[in-house]
Amino acid sequence: MERKNIVNTRYITFEGPGSQLLLDSGQKLTAVTIAYETYGNLNKKRDNTVLIFHALSGDAHAAGFNSESDKKPGWWDIMIGPAKPFDTDKYFVICSNVIGGCKGSTGPSSINPETKKPYGLSFPEITINDMLKPQKKLLEHLGIEKLFCIAGGSMGGMQALQWIVAYPETAKGAIIIAAAAGHTAQQIAFNSIGRYAIISDPAWNNGNYYDKSCMGKRPDIGLSIARMIGHITYISEELMHKKFGRDFINKNRIKKSFIDFTKEFEVESYLYYQGESFIKRFDPNSYLYITKALDNFNLSQGYKNLVEAMSRVKSRCLVLSFKSDWLYPGQQSMQIVKALKINGVDTTYVDLDLPYGHDSFLIEDKKLISLVKGFTGGLED
Amino acid sequence: MERKNIVNTRYITFEGPGSQLLLDSGQKLTAVTIAYETYGNLNKKRDNTVLIFHALSGDAHAAGFNSESDKKPGWWDIMIGPAKPFDTDKYFVICSNVIGGCKGSTGPSSINPETKKPYGLSFPEITINDMLKPQKKLLEHLGIEKLFCIAGGSMGGMQALQWIVAYPETAKGAIIIAAAAGHTAQQIAFNSIGRYAIISDPAWNNGNYYDKSCMGKRPDIGLSIARMIGHITYISEELMHKKFGRDFINKNRIKKSFIDFTKEFEVESYLYYQGESFIKRFDPNSYLYITKALDNFNLSQGYKNLVEAMSRVKSRCLVLSFKSDWLYPGQQSMQIVKALKINGVDTTYVDLDLPYGHDSFLIEDKKLISLVKGFTGGLED
Repeated sequence: MERKNIVNTRYITFEGPGSQLLLDSGQKLTAVTIAYETYGNLNKKRDNTVLIFHALSGDAHAAGFNSESDKKPGWWDIMIGPAKPFDTDKYFVICSNVIGGCKGSTGPSSINPETKKPYGLSFPEITINDMLKPQKKLLEHLGIEKLFCIAGGSMGGMQALQWIVAYPETAKGAIIIAAAAGHTAQQIAFNSIGRYAIISDPAWNNGNYYDKSCMGKRPDIGLSIARMIGHITYISEELMHKKFGRDFINKNRIKKSFIDFTKEFEVESYLYYQGESFIKRFDPNSYLYITKALDNFNLSQGYKNLVEAMSRVKSRCLVLSFKSDWLYPGQQSMQIVKALKINGVDTTYVDLDLPYGHDSFLIEDKKLISLVKGFTGGLED
Repeated sequence: MERKNIVNTRYITFEGPGSQLLLDSGQKLTAVTIAYETYGNLNKKRDNTVLIFHALSGDAHAAGFNSESDKKPGWWDIMIGPAKPFDTDKYFVICSNVIGGCKGSTGPSSINPETKKPYGLSFPEITINDMLKPQKKLLEHLGIEKLFCIAGGSMGGMQALQWIVAYPETAKGAIIIAAAAGHTAQQIAFNSIGRYAIISDPAWNNGNYYDKSCMGKRPDIGLSIARMIGHITYISEELMHKKFGRDFINKNRIKKSFIDFTKEFEVESYLYYQGESFIKRFDPNSYLYITKALDNFNLSQGYKNLVEAMSRVKSRCLVLSFKSDWLYPGQQSMQIVKALKINGVDTTYVDLDLPYGHDSFLIEDKKLISLVKGFTGGLED
């Protein structure tokens, strides 16, 4: 049996003078911890780093296994490893958990050093731009000034977009997948109903549920509803129907003694499972803060328009969207591409014909892999 | 000031020997009440009746005003009235509330004659086909055997589909708008999350909330979440973005003393309002029963396939879908049309280029009006 590629999540806390994180809101966060993983080795020229940004429910664990007993590898293992697009024989790959998250980086469930209690809603509002700041600090800590490439899908793609505008001198290439320069009303609407479900759950208790002193539980129902809504939007109608169709869990439809309103169809059972597994691994307050950062994200803000914002970009760009992604439709990627092209940025755009919907970037596919590989290969010239 | 066209909702209760309603489940409902409205007059030949079917949240009040103080007319007033497609100078138009509903027809909030208490979950499971049965009885009561036309959008369209298969000898014409012969996994998924939100609301109390003895309230939060989810799916992404974009309610974004997770964007306020207004007029248990009937609807059931089911049809058909309707995409209407055409049924199909999404059938539009008018006019030949 092949030995698993074991990787350890590491943590860094920025402490001491000048280490405070100044947020876009003007508020400050002290003693910020960032969880991160690295794969491959930094070369002598310190110019082979690939910075990976995760999506809403992702974390620092992008590749390999954290222990021998782990059944699944990191969330972008299809991309990161020897001979893969982010080839760890060539590149030094870094992925960190965003602030506001709940996978090791400072977020609302972290202990506020001033009160010695979880932040809860005393955690300050954060932006996509704020998420980048500790990642930049982490790079400085690791002695890395220049990046070979940055990459991410969905919220990861938005971080990549923000990065090439905020730190235009740093990244040679940027891969922006299934993203947008700003949410549409519908994208905001889906997130907002999820947030409404969480804050309407009596167990949410205004964000103070960590000690389970209110009702003895967390707002799990609200979070699972939010996740179920999200999950519908992440996969294509076609894939969902192909997977589940109108199939019943109980194929013989044996009469039950009650009307089962939510677990009679296969697709219902699947969604319910998605909700149940999510509540075990995610913090409801983190869901509020991160989706709010997503909805507030507007790359044009502070500029006349998107074209002006993109005038700062110096990275070569690969922009990908998926024909079956109805949550982040191709036209949003087209807006990004147009703004880049108007500024003369070397940009490749492909609207990939993959059937999986928004989550296509997480699924192993030859076309996707070869496009990303081709782009990183081209950056080496 | 023009006097309003006042119409009264009427009620009929089927009582006495042989009046029980035998449901598809094998269960029986006694003393079923149906709320209905009529517009125009039945002619001497008794062949000018148009039967209108309402959608999920609709009711018997399809046209005119119930009182002088009513601000809005019935839900399909654009279609019903003098010189309108369902011309009340020519046709006798009937619309009734479905069983399982909460607008006057017997449903889970009605008093069970046996227990003298609201049915709650003791109300039997119903199907789209079951919804037709008391409507057929109502026609018999009114002395109507033949229908000039039947028509409906969304769930109303599904009732029309079921009608032309269940009672093929009755309707000369059938107008089926934005409907499907069976829900896809995604359509089931959206409804199911709404149901999950309702039954997870502690105030639902297993359907026993009518006396508010549990927590002093109804499962309003669950129902409003269900409605908010539904509402996103009823309107097009384009319309939603045109209406609200990324606009903030508080245009100057004056700093609040708290983070507002759900009511900062215009679109959030709009959805919240949709939820709030819905809970005032709809019964959460009715929402469960009716959406379940929608998800269970499968016109092919009991037949080899849809083509065989449609072999029963003798009505001339007009099938309409809307290009911007992403909930009930055109291809579902195409399936219906193909099955009708294979059977040689005289069928007209138009995929209308209206921008409003699934709810386009409720919005006044020249193209829509003239198509329906043209179809009813053609039926007169």
